[in-house]
Amino acid sequence: MRRLEIIGLEGLGGVRQGDSIGRLIYQACSRHRITLVDGDILVVAHKIVSKAEGRIIRLDTIQPSSRALELSHELGKDPCLLEIILRETRRIIRVGGGTIIVETHHGFICANAGVDLSNVGLGQVALLPLDPDRSAREIREEVRQLSGVMPGVIISDSFGRPWRLGTVDVAVGVSGLKPLKDDRGKNDRYGYELKASVAAVADELAAAAELVMGKRGEIPVVIIRGYSVEGEDGSAKELLRPEAEDLFRKF
Amino acid sequence: MRRLEIIGLEGLGGVRQGDSIGRLIYQACSRHRITLVDGDILVVAHKIVSKAEGRIIRLDTIQPSSRALELSHELGKDPCLLEIILRETRRIIRVGGGTIIVETHHGFICANAGVDLSNVGLGQVALLPLDPDRSAREIREEVRQLSGVMPGVIISDSFGRPWRLGTVDVAVGVSGLKPLKDDRGKNDRYGYELKASVAAVADELAAAAELVMGKRGEIPVVIIRGYSVEGEDGSAKELLRPEAEDLFRKF
Repeated sequence: MRRLEIIGLEGLGGVRQGDSIGRLIYQACSRHRITLVDGDILVVAHKIVSKAEGRIIRLDTIQPSSRALELSHELGKDPCLLEIILRETRRIIRVGGGTIIVETHHGFICANAGVDLSNVGLGQVALLPLDPDRSAREIREEVRQLSGVMPGVIISDSFGRPWRLGTVDVAVGVSGLKPLKDDRGKNDRYGYELKASVAAVADELAAAAELVMGKRGEIPVVIIRGYSVEGEDGSAKELLRPEAEDLFRKF
Repeated sequence: MRRLEIIGLEGLGGVRQGDSIGRLIYQACSRHRITLVDGDILVVAHKIVSKAEGRIIRLDTIQPSSRALELSHELGKDPCLLEIILRETRRIIRVGGGTIIVETHHGFICANAGVDLSNVGLGQVALLPLDPDRSAREIREEVRQLSGVMPGVIISDSFGRPWRLGTVDVAVGVSGLKPLKDDRGKNDRYGYELKASVAAVADELAAAAELVMGKRGEIPVVIIRGYSVEGEDGSAKELLRPEAEDLFRKF
């Protein structure tokens, strides 16, 4: 039987700037007597990566621009928070209903440019890592140095979606696996050639991990065991739909 | 440690109209010596449900309307396929780049109204079940009658997304669990009250199952074990964002 295990790694709570996430993961595995094996995938909540990389900002250090003040009136949100969101933004996609959807400098389209108030401490916000693929590569390399094993690594965040309620976790950084699984050109059992079968497996792995992580920060790292990784390496940027092929970006 | 298992159930290939999916699942579990337990969640690819419910159509029985012929020219797709898509459609959301995004009569917004050519036999297409929540309830009840256990049941399909490439599986039918996990009002460890933390767990469970299912139809049913289901029952309709709150429906 094809079988996956999704294992929550507890005890990684108090991450501080400068910490090595790879080392913390290795140490937590040791404490819990978990031996990482080849093919394991580590899904890491971006929040602890942002903390380790110093991507945390105190709201009271921010001077809001006039644009942030305008948006603050329109959205009923803190102008300092909006100023931080604007600094993380390449362009605004939609504003309405108390929500701001933007394209970040990385190219992700999401609410609030991924700027988040939860699980960081009162009066502070977490930004997405500057280069989440690089963060994933570094974690992978740290784990390799300590354990000799090269896991796949996914940095995850919770994104909302058009049309459907609730967030699902997606991959914002990837190392050691291809984020898309392309079955186009293969035949089904009836001889039909699959034409649209590209699965965003890195996003599905992130979503699967969220079921164990939860939203309160107790389990920021999840090990997925038994998934047969295809491809040696990849980038979360492969998940971004090019603007020219996107029906929901320009209006 | 919090831990989930995701177990693919093989040997459910040749589903025919009139088959009881619940009975086929029960029999496949018996053959593979898997005993279902309370709390298990069955994720069932909609394709086998559509087959059992007779929601399969031969393309050569269809007379395309003038609207289907027009769209056929615009999109470069088979006019008979487009006629079937239009019959499943409440309204068209976007047409472009060879793609048609519609709102189905159920309220799902997806490509091709969920009409699918793969894993059904050449010259045929599968429609989504008429009432996927009802399909999920029936499977749940059939399994209960045979095993005494009441699993959660999710009917899944692969949907594309704006902005991101690749499909992820989502829940189109639900029985025996709440599809949304609402943590709003709870506090994180810093005392911050969570304000936006609603996870679409039924979609995340469907996404997790796809990692084991794959796209070629060999594993149409997956058992997810170890997830603590909240709520006695729910509907996939709870996942549909109301139009008035949706920033990407009307233009």
